[in-house]
Amino acid sequence: MTELARLPKSIATVCLSGALPDKLEAASAAGFQSVEIFENDLLTFDGTPADVRRACEDLDLGISIFQPFRDFEAMPEPQRTRNLDRAERKFDTMQALGTDLVLVCSNVQPGALDDPARAAADLHDMAERAARRGLRVCYEALAWGRHVKRWRQAWEIIRIADHPALGLCLDSFHTLALGDDLSGLAGTVPPEKVFFLQLADAPRLAMDPLSWSRHHRLFPGQGELDVTRFLQDLLKAGWAGTLSLEVFNDEFRGAPSRRTARDGLRSLLWLEEQVGRVQLPRLPTLGGIEFVEFAVDAAAREELGRFLGGLGFARAGLHRSKDVELWRNGAANLVLNAEPDSAAAERFEQLGPTVCAMALRVDDPERVVARAEALQYPVWRERIGEGERHIPAVRQPDGTLVYLVEDPAQGARPIWEDDFSVSPVEDSPAPLLGVDHAAEAVAPGMMDSFVLFYRTLLGLQAETLWELPDPYGLVRSRAFVAPNGSVRLPLSVSESTRTGTGRFVSALAGAGMHHIAFAVADVATAVDLAAARGAPLLDIPENYYEDLAARLGLEDAELLALQRRHLLYDRDAAGGVFRHAYTRQFRDRIFLEVAERDGGYTGFGAVNAPVRMAAQRRDARPGVDRTSSAE
Amino acid sequence: MTELARLPKSIATVCLSGALPDKLEAASAAGFQSVEIFENDLLTFDGTPADVRRACEDLDLGISIFQPFRDFEAMPEPQRTRNLDRAERKFDTMQALGTDLVLVCSNVQPGALDDPARAAADLHDMAERAARRGLRVCYEALAWGRHVKRWRQAWEIIRIADHPALGLCLDSFHTLALGDDLSGLAGTVPPEKVFFLQLADAPRLAMDPLSWSRHHRLFPGQGELDVTRFLQDLLKAGWAGTLSLEVFNDEFRGAPSRRTARDGLRSLLWLEEQVGRVQLPRLPTLGGIEFVEFAVDAAAREELGRFLGGLGFARAGLHRSKDVELWRNGAANLVLNAEPDSAAAERFEQLGPTVCAMALRVDDPERVVARAEALQYPVWRERIGEGERHIPAVRQPDGTLVYLVEDPAQGARPIWEDDFSVSPVEDSPAPLLGVDHAAEAVAPGMMDSFVLFYRTLLGLQAETLWELPDPYGLVRSRAFVAPNGSVRLPLSVSESTRTGTGRFVSALAGAGMHHIAFAVADVATAVDLAAARGAPLLDIPENYYEDLAARLGLEDAELLALQRRHLLYDRDAAGGVFRHAYTRQFRDRIFLEVAERDGGYTGFGAVNAPVRMAAQRRDARPGVDRTSSAE
Repeated sequence: MTELARLPKSIATVCLSGALPDKLEAASAAGFQSVEIFENDLLTFDGTPADVRRACEDLDLGISIFQPFRDFEAMPEPQRTRNLDRAERKFDTMQALGTDLVLVCSNVQPGALDDPARAAADLHDMAERAARRGLRVCYEALAWGRHVKRWRQAWEIIRIADHPALGLCLDSFHTLALGDDLSGLAGTVPPEKVFFLQLADAPRLAMDPLSWSRHHRLFPGQGELDVTRFLQDLLKAGWAGTLSLEVFNDEFRGAPSRRTARDGLRSLLWLEEQVGRVQLPRLPTLGGIEFVEFAVDAAAREELGRFLGGLGFARAGLHRSKDVELWRNGAANLVLNAEPDSAAAERFEQLGPTVCAMALRVDDPERVVARAEALQYPVWRERIGEGERHIPAVRQPDGTLVYLVEDPAQGARPIWEDDFSVSPVEDSPAPLLGVDHAAEAVAPGMMDSFVLFYRTLLGLQAETLWELPDPYGLVRSRAFVAPNGSVRLPLSVSESTRTGTGRFVSALAGAGMHHIAFAVADVATAVDLAAARGAPLLDIPENYYEDLAARLGLEDAELLALQRRHLLYDRDAAGGVFRHAYTRQFRDRIFLEVAERDGGYTGFGAVNAPVRMAAQRRDARPGVDRTSSAE
Repeated sequence: MTELARLPKSIATVCLSGALPDKLEAASAAGFQSVEIFENDLLTFDGTPADVRRACEDLDLGISIFQPFRDFEAMPEPQRTRNLDRAERKFDTMQALGTDLVLVCSNVQPGALDDPARAAADLHDMAERAARRGLRVCYEALAWGRHVKRWRQAWEIIRIADHPALGLCLDSFHTLALGDDLSGLAGTVPPEKVFFLQLADAPRLAMDPLSWSRHHRLFPGQGELDVTRFLQDLLKAGWAGTLSLEVFNDEFRGAPSRRTARDGLRSLLWLEEQVGRVQLPRLPTLGGIEFVEFAVDAAAREELGRFLGGLGFARAGLHRSKDVELWRNGAANLVLNAEPDSAAAERFEQLGPTVCAMALRVDDPERVVARAEALQYPVWRERIGEGERHIPAVRQPDGTLVYLVEDPAQGARPIWEDDFSVSPVEDSPAPLLGVDHAAEAVAPGMMDSFVLFYRTLLGLQAETLWELPDPYGLVRSRAFVAPNGSVRLPLSVSESTRTGTGRFVSALAGAGMHHIAFAVADVATAVDLAAARGAPLLDIPENYYEDLAARLGLEDAELLALQRRHLLYDRDAAGGVFRHAYTRQFRDRIFLEVAERDGGYTGFGAVNAPVRMAAQRRDARPGVDRTSSAE
């Protein structure tokens, strides 16, 4: 693949939070070449349009368009004349801003005429007036326009109007939200007549397009619309212009503008890769989670060690130069990092004992780092001692690290051999097979940043969204999974701060890993061993098993075997089975799970999550939720 | 009207947050006679069904129904047989719980057969098995059922099944969400065959009924569905049974269960009044806001006095026995309360200087108090000095007080004459005409409690919902207005904690009044006077006036007159005009507005709110948002 020239990138100021100067700063810092000036941001700004022009020049930002100009075409008189006067006023503003393009979106007024010829005549008049000042007009079909809803209708009006200063504006959301696409564009619309392109993704929601558009748009790659195909079709039609993001999103409005702008640029870089326009360092082939690392001090390490010991973890190695221990059970590795002046120490000081990193096995760590750099994700290189292995890492949106290690399954030398003095651990009769999944709880405003990180850097795929009732609010959970199934990272989010997820996220003021599940071949044996070791396992109420019997018709013996061990159970439509058990929480910061998958089961036992969450809540305040039968 | 017997009241445990014992406690404390046991609440509970039965007995609560039993009818074999086995298991649970009724909701499985006869046969079998144990089954059409979506379909199946232990369950949401109603029920369905009734309201949302139902249901009176008509139709058909609330609501899930339960009971009392079943003390006729009261200490009073002086308020009276001052401009009264050991002092200690009460003019204060008591709203009676007037008050959901005073316009003696020594104040050339509107900012979880308070106690009517973009997130705002227009109380809510509304609500950890608008006859003169007095008025940027000119085609002279005074302007479709100006914030706690209404304008200038909010934000951090043109 030969690399084509990258396309210029723009972002609408409405995507970003804050006052106009904040938005311009953030767009420039992220590396956009230009911004769309959303009119409302100009109206609320207390400088002149010329001030905005100068601020943009200082930041080396162009102004790609001024938008929107609403409810213009096909109005009866006297509104028609008034609208042309209004346009002249806005042309003044555009000239002061120094932009030559204005976006007219299709009329939503009940009084608008259903008359394409009249709409064309009005837009011709407007374009003629614009052209006299060296300006241009582009016309866009809103998905909820009164009469003009689709790009083909908008194009037909532009074709009739036939003015060189009038062209089409395409918006991926307006097209894809209606289930439409760009088929028929090539050969019909000359590419130079597509004056502007706005890109937005969105989750698939069954709601009216107006509310959907105003509140739930996302950057490409964060949602479920086929923006890639949309752009491919446009490029095939011969178009090559600016890629501009226009996203209305309730959470983006409250998020820091610099983070949002950086995510926006990343989404466009990823999209250019998807359409074959640029070549980023290839996505990694993942081979599982090599270790999870906890930030601790000596005291917390001792306490955590006891907790981990319940699941059969034992100290299996010491770092050669740092105060870092390796704990191991079978193929599952945990790192307890108490090294001062490290990334871990920083996190420990802020948050106490908590997960500060994980390591992914990849085919080529340095290629992932190069991909991260291309996507502008921050890369971290810890200082190392002499002869020690350099392990590169990328920072996740919550500040924790993702280390990248060569996959030992591909013949690479395990990292432990260089940096640790490893002592052999006694074989467990039911060793852990590795990390089955590791779950991150994230604040609502940070979810979309994580989705982008998982998809664009690591190539993980989004699974079904689950809505799980915690006793104090809903928790929404979605797993991100490697195409080969080797890495599974569920993300949980809760609007309520009273749920387990919400309380964890509040305590961390952002996000963090709060749950690690380990794969086992035989969960019954694993739980029996854990119980024998005194592991703090989570009690599951009897009613759960009554319902299991009713729902799934399990044999009494099997039911009893589950109940005796507080094992949860799920069965999928194809007969795949999931058996799993949880530990109690370690200091409200982490809980562990052992899980056995049989018959190709690929889920996470989501159906059991409410039972687990209620049990965790009871456990967090023993006695309070119990009604004694002796009363 | 003769009062009929009140109907028994029930609430589904799914409406309430917490573990099952919390939910039962809350339902009992609010005064419900019974609860629906939502199956999930039983499954996650770590006691037996018999424990639940005993807990209910201890709380004097019945169990009205066990629900839901899903995906039962019209399944092919072997599911059909399995489902009957499942039913037997659940019958065991019901008998242990001590309830005789189970709710079967219509099948949503893709594999369900579109075969009413088969559905009838299956339900007949289930009812027969239930009857053998003295149990009964009711069948409900889910709005998103695979084949059975409407109550008429469900009834037809029940009619064919023809079993005495099988009846209909009606749910106001499932019926009204589809735009359906109960017409045709009377004369078709014998009232004794309606075994159960579930009531829920909801806002009108254009989304799929499943998501709408799962996340946005409300108690009757909190939403926009015609639940009153629904219940009237059912009563007309001869039905008289238990009124049971079933609400799935994301915010209720996170809200304190006792508050939610109390609101639920209030909503049913109100609904019974609406359908003429009970007679509560009549709604008040409102006559405006007599005063707004601030909690202060001596230092804050001095500072607030200076702030109020800018709008022409002057000290006009001293309370005879308490450290309370009356400040007045024209017909607008403000009370500055620094009395120790008062409700005001309590609020001041917690929150600093802030609004702690308002007084509404009503036709009969004691009748409002009686209505509040009937609706279980807490009533407050402040201690009074000898010869002083007793002014009763009701506590709003945020803990602030609504005093109730006789309307002086109806000839009542003004309260000031008894309790204050009032000194005459110099007449202002542009006196305030009174409070135009007073706005409360509320935390998301508290909104529906306020809506219920305003509607059920005061009879205020909900106006259009506005979505207003603050620079750091959306603010949703809806005004509640007396039918005679004398009282206007907008409520604002923001999911983002970074908006002005969100920051205020976070600082107050709940809700509070943050904005008072005063009516004036001539806003230009009022603003000129305020400016002359050195009032801290809010600057409005020039771009706003440029846009006003383009949008509304104002004459240059009028535009200039507005701009010179930082006046905002709105015009409605009928030509009504609103001119208004704001003060800067007092300690981030309150801002004031002067507003002139002409030509029957009834809005609040919502179109100008983004400009106001951006200006307030700039004002809160001067310099930061400005881009100097000199750079």
